[in-house]
Amino acid sequence: MKRICYPLLFLSPALLFAQEVDQSALAKIRKEGLENSKVKEIAHHLTDVTGPRLTNSPGFQRAADWSVKQLKDWGLKNASLQEWGEFGKGWQVEKSYLAMTKPYYMPFIAIPKAWTAGTNGALTGEVVVVDIQNEDDLKKYAGGNLKGKVVLTRSAADTDPGFKPDANRYTAEDLEKMTNSQPFGQSSFNPEQMERLLKMRSFRSKVDSTLKTQGIKLELAGRTGKHGTFFTSNGASYKGDSPVAGPAFEIAPEYAGLIARLAESGIPVTIEAESKTTFYDKNLKTGNVIAEIPGTDPKLKDEIVMLGAHLDSWHSATGATDNAAGSTVMMEAVRILQATGLKPKRTIRIALWSGEEQGLHGSRNYVKNTFGDPQTMKLLPAHEKLSAYYNIDNGTGRIRGIYLQGNEGPRAVFEKWLGEFKDIIDNPTVTSRNTGGTDHQSFDAVGLPGFQFIQDGIEYNTRTHHTNVDTYERLVMDDLKQMATVVAAFVYNTAQMDQKIPRKELPKPRTATGVSR
Amino acid sequence: MKRICYPLLFLSPALLFAQEVDQSALAKIRKEGLENSKVKEIAHHLTDVTGPRLTNSPGFQRAADWSVKQLKDWGLKNASLQEWGEFGKGWQVEKSYLAMTKPYYMPFIAIPKAWTAGTNGALTGEVVVVDIQNEDDLKKYAGGNLKGKVVLTRSAADTDPGFKPDANRYTAEDLEKMTNSQPFGQSSFNPEQMERLLKMRSFRSKVDSTLKTQGIKLELAGRTGKHGTFFTSNGASYKGDSPVAGPAFEIAPEYAGLIARLAESGIPVTIEAESKTTFYDKNLKTGNVIAEIPGTDPKLKDEIVMLGAHLDSWHSATGATDNAAGSTVMMEAVRILQATGLKPKRTIRIALWSGEEQGLHGSRNYVKNTFGDPQTMKLLPAHEKLSAYYNIDNGTGRIRGIYLQGNEGPRAVFEKWLGEFKDIIDNPTVTSRNTGGTDHQSFDAVGLPGFQFIQDGIEYNTRTHHTNVDTYERLVMDDLKQMATVVAAFVYNTAQMDQKIPRKELPKPRTATGVSR
Repeated sequence: MKRICYPLLFLSPALLFAQEVDQSALAKIRKEGLENSKVKEIAHHLTDVTGPRLTNSPGFQRAADWSVKQLKDWGLKNASLQEWGEFGKGWQVEKSYLAMTKPYYMPFIAIPKAWTAGTNGALTGEVVVVDIQNEDDLKKYAGGNLKGKVVLTRSAADTDPGFKPDANRYTAEDLEKMTNSQPFGQSSFNPEQMERLLKMRSFRSKVDSTLKTQGIKLELAGRTGKHGTFFTSNGASYKGDSPVAGPAFEIAPEYAGLIARLAESGIPVTIEAESKTTFYDKNLKTGNVIAEIPGTDPKLKDEIVMLGAHLDSWHSATGATDNAAGSTVMMEAVRILQATGLKPKRTIRIALWSGEEQGLHGSRNYVKNTFGDPQTMKLLPAHEKLSAYYNIDNGTGRIRGIYLQGNEGPRAVFEKWLGEFKDIIDNPTVTSRNTGGTDHQSFDAVGLPGFQFIQDGIEYNTRTHHTNVDTYERLVMDDLKQMATVVAAFVYNTAQMDQKIPRKELPKPRTATGVSR
Repeated sequence: MKRICYPLLFLSPALLFAQEVDQSALAKIRKEGLENSKVKEIAHHLTDVTGPRLTNSPGFQRAADWSVKQLKDWGLKNASLQEWGEFGKGWQVEKSYLAMTKPYYMPFIAIPKAWTAGTNGALTGEVVVVDIQNEDDLKKYAGGNLKGKVVLTRSAADTDPGFKPDANRYTAEDLEKMTNSQPFGQSSFNPEQMERLLKMRSFRSKVDSTLKTQGIKLELAGRTGKHGTFFTSNGASYKGDSPVAGPAFEIAPEYAGLIARLAESGIPVTIEAESKTTFYDKNLKTGNVIAEIPGTDPKLKDEIVMLGAHLDSWHSATGATDNAAGSTVMMEAVRILQATGLKPKRTIRIALWSGEEQGLHGSRNYVKNTFGDPQTMKLLPAHEKLSAYYNIDNGTGRIRGIYLQGNEGPRAVFEKWLGEFKDIIDNPTVTSRNTGGTDHQSFDAVGLPGFQFIQDGIEYNTRTHHTNVDTYERLVMDDLKQMATVVAAFVYNTAQMDQKIPRKELPKPRTATGVSR
């Protein structure tokens, strides 16, 4: 749900603009970030060495432990995995095998859906293909006739050849358009489209939950992706009190298509499957990695500048662009600042969030525990102390600008700061637009300045975001290096400003249903 | 090896040009091909229903049996799987499972290399990464220290984001260039490049064969491909008397990269694997599917027009673009001719070859048994009776023209025939260029007119040719339909001409080493 907020300027941009950037500090940051980068090493640890980082799984714990230790080693203070409350069950895959055995043998590219049970040893079964487009279709399958079956839910995948590149960067025109044409709060859907989309989503979720009650032996689904790439998701709830759902695999759409076409031709398809998944439900609580570079100005050191990215990932790959990239960049940014020996006036605090993929849980709870409750808008004392929060969560693509989230106050400052990097940012862009889907929103929700950078898309939407091939290979190291350098400068500049970053008007308290009063 | 032959015209193009195309026949072909196409059904049978079609495997046999029956059902005569001699062992995969188990669990996208043994149950082992760039490197591993190990041979994969589209079609400029700038026989490599390439290949093959003698427990290799796509190959010989090679998997390069990077960081990697492969060595002989539409002109019916495509494929997918596409088009072309009720003057013969992927064995042996021996150039009587052979083996992309293979004789005729399809062929192109790597070369080698069509590339080189994702999804049905219609017209026109298609000068006999005298 989006609410339109109109900017109210606490400080005039002109005043902020007057403050010059410390060129000597900037030169140090630039040198350390561009000539002595450690993004390769950090990213290698967060992806290859750690593995998938689903929240509360052993992989997440490994990533958190390593990050805490690494941040301490770089001299950051107060580094810890700071508990924020109850997330739910951890879960990981320990065996994943799926193949067609009749009419001939074919191994499938597949992975168990997150938070589903394993098969409890090897199983075989003939596949029933269900094609559920409407309520009538659904009724056909709700009467128990799928009990004990292997069920493939059919859906149409995009099979067009790739005449468009998988990867892209913003052109000057794209960025120009972004600056000018899409005002804050405008949805890219018209109301009819939005209604259709919501209806479709709600129907899909009804189908999923109906199928779950049918005592199916094994569920298969292959929805999006091509050429061996597929997109993963969860197959059941991670909540501590949720029942355990039966085994389900996400498969590459090619195999879903194969089974469906064979079924249409009346040719029986038999599969064999073996999966083992482990739930971790002894400790349902989890935390965020937090660490600080303490401020040094007696008047300003109690004020905070935050930077963050989510550390958690989905489970079918090593979550390289979503979001080892962001975590790498933020860790590297504080490493750069430490290595330069610069002494920031305000305290700089890094956060590596958990539970982002399931609804920004780590950052939402951190904000609620630290700054205030977006429902009641009861604010805590620290709310006054935060200058800004900077977030990275759009993959591996280099920074091209920043989203103001409708907060016009810092425009001139950000334009100036981006302008210092014209050699490594083509067409630096400040847009009034908001962008959603990640952790800066948790700050925005309580009226704190939370920003996400504009990044080149690269292969984020086509190949990497939530896919089985989001591996170290997908990272463009030169882009990570650029991002870390720019972020380090933004964070340092924010820490040195005479004032805090201007804020929007405070949001109004919401009712319990989440609707604005 | 390529030999330069200069065209010698037996008939003047002007004379051939004089013969008008039968417009009423063309209209019938066009109507049947474009409005009543069966390419979807044929392709579905050859891919989905049949499965992988490695020569002499049960899959190949299923494809051959179905094709023979289908051709008979359409009323073709003399349809059979015509034995051509000894190919070697059949082989198929019956289980394929590979995963990393330490430092964490990750299932791999993988398939056994063709003609390698299975693992004989599940095995586990720590992976040793070998990086062999030169003879000195090779010596390090030739002394028995790899015995009993799981070995990954390292190689650098392309990990750049896909800024270029996976799929392409020829532009008018591309075709213009093809018409004008690349004369027959010109290699795209200069002599130094060619020497380097041959050296590299020979070294690679030496590495492979050395490793095979080291008593390795399991071999892993991940060379080319990205995003879940990988390219497959054979890991051992298919020859009847070749020893059985130990188990080996081809894996998606992402996992090869993962293992290699972990090894560099000193982190032990353990894998678990289970594969089962079956060899079929009772009958080492195999055949090509052959069928005919008998000619009806008393003087010309003993003359033959051939069309063909290879029916065999690699084993990691259903070989859709390589070459169910070509087989589908050729089957559909004869179906179109049968459905129109047209009575060709010459006999039309379709051939669906085996063993193409291992060296054009099916077509080479067919040509040798039927038309003459390219080594001795001892010709058989049928050599005089063949007008032309048309081949399709460049994937799913529509026809844009034809390669003359240096035979300028039919240029005017082909230009005229292509010109009849200007509504469905953009920039129809006749090029003097030769193209290699497939079965028309077997005809060319004995001086018979063998032609391959120019086809749009689509995703052939990037995603489909010899890959694990060469499935039905990769087929562009509208393009197959167009191809079948154009081929049917070419074949029919050839059958109706007053003369046979002009030939190049006969090649000279070769010595036993295959070098021109």
